[in-house]
Amino acid sequence: MPLADMPKIGFGLWKVAPEDCEDTVLEAIKAGYRHFDCAADYGNEAEVGAGFAAAFAQGIVTRDELWITSKLWNTFHAPEHVEKACRKSLADLGLDYLDLYLVHFPIALKFVPIEERYPPEWLAHPDAATATMERANVPLHATWAGMEGLVASGLTRQIGVCNYNSGLLHDLMSYAEIKPAVLQIEAHPYLTQEKLIRLAGEYGIHVTAFSPLGALSYVELDMAGRADSVLTEPVVEAAASAHGKAPAQIVLRWGIQRGTSIIPKTSKPERMRENLALNDFTLTDAEMASISALNANRRFNDPGVFCEAAFNTFNPIYD
Amino acid sequence: MPLADMPKIGFGLWKVAPEDCEDTVLEAIKAGYRHFDCAADYGNEAEVGAGFAAAFAQGIVTRDELWITSKLWNTFHAPEHVEKACRKSLADLGLDYLDLYLVHFPIALKFVPIEERYPPEWLAHPDAATATMERANVPLHATWAGMEGLVASGLTRQIGVCNYNSGLLHDLMSYAEIKPAVLQIEAHPYLTQEKLIRLAGEYGIHVTAFSPLGALSYVELDMAGRADSVLTEPVVEAAASAHGKAPAQIVLRWGIQRGTSIIPKTSKPERMRENLALNDFTLTDAEMASISALNANRRFNDPGVFCEAAFNTFNPIYD
Repeated sequence: MPLADMPKIGFGLWKVAPEDCEDTVLEAIKAGYRHFDCAADYGNEAEVGAGFAAAFAQGIVTRDELWITSKLWNTFHAPEHVEKACRKSLADLGLDYLDLYLVHFPIALKFVPIEERYPPEWLAHPDAATATMERANVPLHATWAGMEGLVASGLTRQIGVCNYNSGLLHDLMSYAEIKPAVLQIEAHPYLTQEKLIRLAGEYGIHVTAFSPLGALSYVELDMAGRADSVLTEPVVEAAASAHGKAPAQIVLRWGIQRGTSIIPKTSKPERMRENLALNDFTLTDAEMASISALNANRRFNDPGVFCEAAFNTFNPIYD
Repeated sequence: MPLADMPKIGFGLWKVAPEDCEDTVLEAIKAGYRHFDCAADYGNEAEVGAGFAAAFAQGIVTRDELWITSKLWNTFHAPEHVEKACRKSLADLGLDYLDLYLVHFPIALKFVPIEERYPPEWLAHPDAATATMERANVPLHATWAGMEGLVASGLTRQIGVCNYNSGLLHDLMSYAEIKPAVLQIEAHPYLTQEKLIRLAGEYGIHVTAFSPLGALSYVELDMAGRADSVLTEPVVEAAASAHGKAPAQIVLRWGIQRGTSIIPKTSKPERMRENLALNDFTLTDAEMASISALNANRRFNDPGVFCEAAFNTFNPIYD
């Protein structure tokens, strides 16, 4: 599918339990989703693939009607591992090409063979109680060259990056022979990322916002509290009343109306449909501005915080 | 001079008018400064060099008693220009080696020949009313390779970078054959940079704080108001009273006591001596913490702001 046709509302597979994936994907396709955001690190690509296979078998969609994204995990940054990692994701997803393959984080970690442990997550030796992350000396430009090779060999149609900031983006643009099509970053009303989104736009890079509802994705991980929810902000509630929509629809509509694509996740079929029903109303300029004004540069997904708590390793990437 | 002997209080030459440089440098050396922070972009290296020459001629210091830093400007990032730029700074400064040469910004701009305009500042064509910055596709890893060449050829003893964030630092560390000795960043009580400084420390990189007094450096450029001054903060004033020191000395002491070196600038001889007199008192842990608690992630030197105002170019590097 050409980038221009990428559905602006995708379905995020992060934190969907493997046992639920086949049903969830099938349900989402039935609800109308045609864009799926996957990653090796989500630990569920085989089960997600089963959902695609079921949808294809039932004749609900064809492969070329879907936009499917996956992501290169940190342990596979070395150019000689990039293709193996991509082929593993393709095999698990049951596909012969991706629409988009993204560098998941601008962090290279020590290689862990697929046969040994998959997905390998952040730790080289997860069993050791005192284990720390182990970085690998793989420059991002070498990883990008590996990513470009995937386009040449037809394994993915587009390539891009996640979690890059403006400094890394300038550098990437200076050496990329195939330019990144997409930048995927955390973005929601508490982290509006206006400068980075504008810079990406000037470079011709489309931005996909992950965690478009903010804290909601992190409550179940104990990385945020319900009190952190943007959904109870008065300006969001006021817009919800004015348009007769749910607060989540207001926040998601804000996301697409500002030009980003969004990849919310939900397990409930009625919520799936709700999250897709964003095209029959338009927020006013004043509503857009008041929601944007909630910005607090508040990041929920920060390796500088969670790697220290979980992996005994200080690992800031945004500071 | 070995890095371990680098004086932790340096003298910053940014914004010292060329006509004042010779006297200022001589005065600073007489006041006891042995560390000077220069840059091609400051437009005054020849005049600064005259100050060094006068001090050498008068027998006040010898070259090896000084730590002298200069910086590679953005237009000279291409490996073939790095040595030319360094040799130009050396010639202007009247030196045959630098103690430290830094990449000034993680931004590559279009090359401007030295004969055409020097220093070239941010614009490729400064005369055009509608001129914008022109970026150059020079990857930072290529620039770093050029910097490493300077060490090999003896033009500088150490190399490092300025204005890199944690993402860029991880990448630099992955490809650097000669590791950066110093990271120079804006840091003061309103921008404490705790994570970045800690990360640099874990990588064995010393941090030099520029604008250690915060807004004070920017008032004369209309980039900050006097009301933005950290010097009138109650916790700073309280510590000043407690120790019988000037508020500026409290803030500068906070800077060195947390392990960074600092490079304040002043034109007044009495202020020069005041800024050097930081070693006869120690801030308490509570004072250190209360000053650090002033942090507001407030950056005064941000190309994402000033390049748009001055050069019609949106150029965020920290977002």
